[in-house]
Amino acid sequence: MASGSTPLAPHPDRLLPSDPVQRPIARRLYAAVRDLPLISPHGHVDPELLAADRPFADPAALLVTPDHYVTRLLHAHGVALHECGLRGGPEEPAPPREVWRAFCSHWHLFLGTASRQWLESELHDVLGVAVQPSADTADALFDELTERLARPELRPRALFRSFGIEVLATTDDPADDLRHHRALAEDPSWQGRVVPTFRPDRYLDATRPDWPAALDRLAAVSGIDTGDYRGLVAALEARREFFRAHGATATDHGAPDPRMEFLPEQEASRLFAEVRAGRGDAALLSRQLLGEMARMSSEDGLVLALHTGSLRDHHPETFARYGPDTGHDIPTRAEFTESLRPMLRRFGTDPRFRTVLCTLDESVFSRELAPIAGFYPSVYLGAPWWFLDAPRAMRRFRDAVTETAGFHRTAGFIDDTRGFCSIPARHDTARRVDAGHLASLVAEHVLSEDDAARVLRDLNDRQPRTAFRL
Amino acid sequence: MASGSTPLAPHPDRLLPSDPVQRPIARRLYAAVRDLPLISPHGHVDPELLAADRPFADPAALLVTPDHYVTRLLHAHGVALHECGLRGGPEEPAPPREVWRAFCSHWHLFLGTASRQWLESELHDVLGVAVQPSADTADALFDELTERLARPELRPRALFRSFGIEVLATTDDPADDLRHHRALAEDPSWQGRVVPTFRPDRYLDATRPDWPAALDRLAAVSGIDTGDYRGLVAALEARREFFRAHGATATDHGAPDPRMEFLPEQEASRLFAEVRAGRGDAALLSRQLLGEMARMSSEDGLVLALHTGSLRDHHPETFARYGPDTGHDIPTRAEFTESLRPMLRRFGTDPRFRTVLCTLDESVFSRELAPIAGFYPSVYLGAPWWFLDAPRAMRRFRDAVTETAGFHRTAGFIDDTRGFCSIPARHDTARRVDAGHLASLVAEHVLSEDDAARVLRDLNDRQPRTAFRL
Amino acid sequence: MASGSTPLAPHPDRLLPSDPVQRPIARRLYAAVRDLPLISPHGHVDPELLAADRPFADPAALLVTPDHYVTRLLHAHGVALHECGLRGGPEEPAPPREVWRAFCSHWHLFLGTASRQWLESELHDVLGVAVQPSADTADALFDELTERLARPELRPRALFRSFGIEVLATTDDPADDLRHHRALAEDPSWQGRVVPTFRPDRYLDATRPDWPAALDRLAAVSGIDTGDYRGLVAALEARREFFRAHGATATDHGAPDPRMEFLPEQEASRLFAEVRAGRGDAALLSRQLLGEMARMSSEDGLVLALHTGSLRDHHPETFARYGPDTGHDIPTRAEFTESLRPMLRRFGTDPRFRTVLCTLDESVFSRELAPIAGFYPSVYLGAPWWFLDAPRAMRRFRDAVTETAGFHRTAGFIDDTRGFCSIPARHDTARRVDAGHLASLVAEHVLSEDDAARVLRDLNDRQPRTAFRL
Repeated sequence: MASGSTPLAPHPDRLLPSDPVQRPIARRLYAAVRDLPLISPHGHVDPELLAADRPFADPAALLVTPDHYVTRLLHAHGVALHECGLRGGPEEPAPPREVWRAFCSHWHLFLGTASRQWLESELHDVLGVAVQPSADTADALFDELTERLARPELRPRALFRSFGIEVLATTDDPADDLRHHRALAEDPSWQGRVVPTFRPDRYLDATRPDWPAALDRLAAVSGIDTGDYRGLVAALEARREFFRAHGATATDHGAPDPRMEFLPEQEASRLFAEVRAGRGDAALLSRQLLGEMARMSSEDGLVLALHTGSLRDHHPETFARYGPDTGHDIPTRAEFTESLRPMLRRFGTDPRFRTVLCTLDESVFSRELAPIAGFYPSVYLGAPWWFLDAPRAMRRFRDAVTETAGFHRTAGFIDDTRGFCSIPARHDTARRVDAGHLASLVAEHVLSEDDAARVLRDLNDRQPRTAFRL
Repeated sequence: MASGSTPLAPHPDRLLPSDPVQRPIARRLYAAVRDLPLISPHGHVDPELLAADRPFADPAALLVTPDHYVTRLLHAHGVALHECGLRGGPEEPAPPREVWRAFCSHWHLFLGTASRQWLESELHDVLGVAVQPSADTADALFDELTERLARPELRPRALFRSFGIEVLATTDDPADDLRHHRALAEDPSWQGRVVPTFRPDRYLDATRPDWPAALDRLAAVSGIDTGDYRGLVAALEARREFFRAHGATATDHGAPDPRMEFLPEQEASRLFAEVRAGRGDAALLSRQLLGEMARMSSEDGLVLALHTGSLRDHHPETFARYGPDTGHDIPTRAEFTESLRPMLRRFGTDPRFRTVLCTLDESVFSRELAPIAGFYPSVYLGAPWWFLDAPRAMRRFRDAVTETAGFHRTAGFIDDTRGFCSIPARHDTARRVDAGHLASLVAEHVLSEDDAARVLRDLNDRQPRTAFRL
Repeated sequence: MASGSTPLAPHPDRLLPSDPVQRPIARRLYAAVRDLPLISPHGHVDPELLAADRPFADPAALLVTPDHYVTRLLHAHGVALHECGLRGGPEEPAPPREVWRAFCSHWHLFLGTASRQWLESELHDVLGVAVQPSADTADALFDELTERLARPELRPRALFRSFGIEVLATTDDPADDLRHHRALAEDPSWQGRVVPTFRPDRYLDATRPDWPAALDRLAAVSGIDTGDYRGLVAALEARREFFRAHGATATDHGAPDPRMEFLPEQEASRLFAEVRAGRGDAALLSRQLLGEMARMSSEDGLVLALHTGSLRDHHPETFARYGPDTGHDIPTRAEFTESLRPMLRRFGTDPRFRTVLCTLDESVFSRELAPIAGFYPSVYLGAPWWFLDAPRAMRRFRDAVTETAGFHRTAGFIDDTRGFCSIPARHDTARRVDAGHLASLVAEHVLSEDDAARVLRDLNDRQPRTAFRL
């Protein structure tokens, strides 16, 4: 241990309730699910990572630069994004060791955040680190980790196995040829299940300047002319079928809000032509195309996952320099009751249709989401997402929805991460928090410990499998 | 006990905090109010139930088919509404034993819900059941309960007495002749107090297709021509007087939102004429008529209870088949600060005027409702309503409003139930939750246990009596 | 002690968690910050109070009449505002002894409110009262306190010292000559630091009928013609400079919402001329002028504090009689993500710019405020404000923002009070609540007790100093 360093030793009971009645119950509940296989029905791991199975380069490239949860908070404390290693601005990105030093010297500013929890677990449990990052320990840690990351047991495929991942869903562009998924599927030495998810935002969002180019790309890939509405719909259907053939069970959508339109085809065709001609209501067409996704889901059975309600790229200058997903997507107020009505009127009770709703706005948990999922058999509530994927927010989610919708209308945990090494820490957090929540109900005699144990197992197995048709 | 069955034995400390400092305080506080008479200032029990005093037919007819809290969650888990015993769809309603089997085999999916709590109490405390419902126990329970429901001590009037109900308010149509209330009042063998509540939604909501027919009915009942605005107002006043003469102390309103208009009479008359002629702003007229209710309350002293913020009948197909109150009323965002200003400007400090505000949107608890009730002497905060009438939501309500408005601007518990047998369970839940909340404050030395005991008694006695002028 | 009186003895552990694991941790954390100097970066104490150093007249004048937190709840319980001692209505204000009696006889109705906590501390810790106010003790308390308030150790300057206030920011009109601040600064017998804050609402809000008169006053004070846009801007800049010269480090703004405009100067000038001529969009001009404040802050370094989201003077009749700040300002829904974007696009990453965001709408804590402060280095989150400045609301604030933004993007405690004697009680409440929150995290092994102690010290020292550039 470096001189003056503080040990890093995550407590075995971390995130379990401190209440002395609840703690032992939570401990027993957690112990029974701690080692269950991980089901990851939605996330952003790059499939090439597993297909190529190259070692991670260094700790900054693994833990800092690509993680916008980490870089955004460094940025808020005055570390410029190029000092976090990001490319694109006028300044050269800092070299990895400098990035790592900046991270380590700001480590205490992460206290209390979800990222800190995950990073402590990753550093300790996955990477074998035993001291807290700090300005003093930064260099030794950098060297130690760079050396260690080259070892075979820390290469992506070995980690996939040691993490106990049973199925991992990636998020993919409809024009993607899914070569990495195919390579994995065809590799006899690889047993893991990695499935793609159909994420067509850029083809549906007619307000984007690059929408026409996206349509051209889709036409090239599908061999179907996307110059009219019917063609675009057919091309999307073809690509969904291609994804299904490669194991996809879901589509995912990041629209600003969940409103959909269901115009008659003739009207939609005219609208499409107008928008392509540079007039017409592009936002309306986008909602219409999202509605087509729901219609297709009701036919091909792909689960429609909605991740709406984020104002992307809030700071234009940062976006212009560093591109999307750089830490300044900021949530906005959500509305589901009115917005989802057209979709649910059509497909809400259709047994072929299934949807998973996620939100960044806690105020809709009890007001809208739980009542909707408490009636419509097609609706599952997604796990607390993004900023809400944190222990106390997860607890608030369970408190807000359970009394109305129970546990079995929720989708279980969704890690939604780009950070491959954070997957076990994130699932472990959810298991601990759910164990603690259930323990509080047992301690208040709302349900028996046997029932709680069954519920916790369902949340980690049956619920994500069912919600995402895995 | 059926083989393989699990005992049903609600814990005497259920819903009390598990914290070992708080638990004994909560237990003492709860014990002191556990057996207080029940004051039910607002609910939906059918007065005929008590007037006729017929035995309940079978457990499905008692606990499942008429309870949309139960049927909605069964529906969400794939049990069709006709399988819950509902009439109106193309399929015949399932026979009661089948309904009961469906309910029992889905019992575990209610874990964690408020309904499960109430049902456990009803089954155990009212109906004497000692095993958990399940597919295995369904038939035996059906037979046992059907037999038991025929006994005299389980007939409605006997239950009313054994529940310790001091006063029960029903919810009634302004055109109702209140015959059942009269029959009860005139029955020398009946001592209970059952009062009507004036619920004029269909006469105020000029956007409904059946509004003209409603006005005709009102004219027929009141003997006052409702063909012009002044007539409609006079007819409503007459019916309020009729309700007052039968013991009513309150009116109740389920408008989409609490906005009211106070147009000059001439303008209102013209608007009325336009709307009756099929043009004009029907929503504006509806808000104007709601405003008339506030004005009348300031004159006749009937308490104006507002239950706003629900989008009724979210799924049109289900509504078309099975009618209203079938589990798919979904809350929407609430706003009170601006919406109530016109009403409060006129009557907010008028000592004759009193209003009770309920919401389905937790975000207004601390933001709007507590500050409003913390200034206007006419405003009482209703209990957490509907989806929020559940232990943790009730706790959040108290946490959100008490620091701004104290305890004595709240109306105490309102059960708002259709399920007669659930009344004691619901009041008991509130008493336990409030005891727990107060115990947490005592344990944190915010108030003394003596003060907490006085507050808890007020919440179960003085507050509902005062808020509803009972 | 009067016969039948109840002792007033705030518990040394009050507001600390009752959980037996958390309590001792919280006690240790709290003990280490209990006696730290008080930094009060924003509040409404009248600087004349300290400049003149006159004794407080009587307990009603000290604790009841000027405190709209207290009078609003008395009013809600039927005590008219003139009975609280307010002037302006048709009735004469009640004499202080009567006001005090009304307050004491309603004391139990404050149970559970934040005001009750503060008042108990003030009465006991500052004023040496040992019995609870009540109808029985009112007269004796009035006499005892009136006598005691005349003592030298209860005069404002002596209290300032005994409270341990290191710096106190007042809130001042831009036209104020800051004579009291100057008098204090020039008084060799006075060592305390009392700084003004620039609060220009009435000069920016062009929708107010008295806006033209305000501009005239500003012109008179600044010697700059405010008859055109450029002149108004120059006059505001001059007054900011005057405030800076008197120690100001911040401006404060109470606009209805935080939206700003940044029109080109020519357009702004035209708009100004139109509004002055009685046409034109006065609300737009107000937002433009708020935008100028942000621009000026980015140049002169005054911290821009935003207190938005209150609908002021909700009850027109009360306002007409008694003026503003009389207990009926009611919060409205907040929105920051879209509203702040124009400001943050310009100045969000500008190191000269700093802003502190406060809200009355809890639903934006996790949804908008924490994500914004978790990216923009210029943004600090203000403490829970007004109705939310209460133990459980403060706890919800920490729970809602910490997981996204950590502790070090928050501004620490802001008392925001008019009640000079309540300052230590309010800071003490925050220290206890934050100690309790941190203790819960330590008990759940989220952070170590050493880290928690450092965080708590930062919240009471580094954070307010940094956020407000003190």
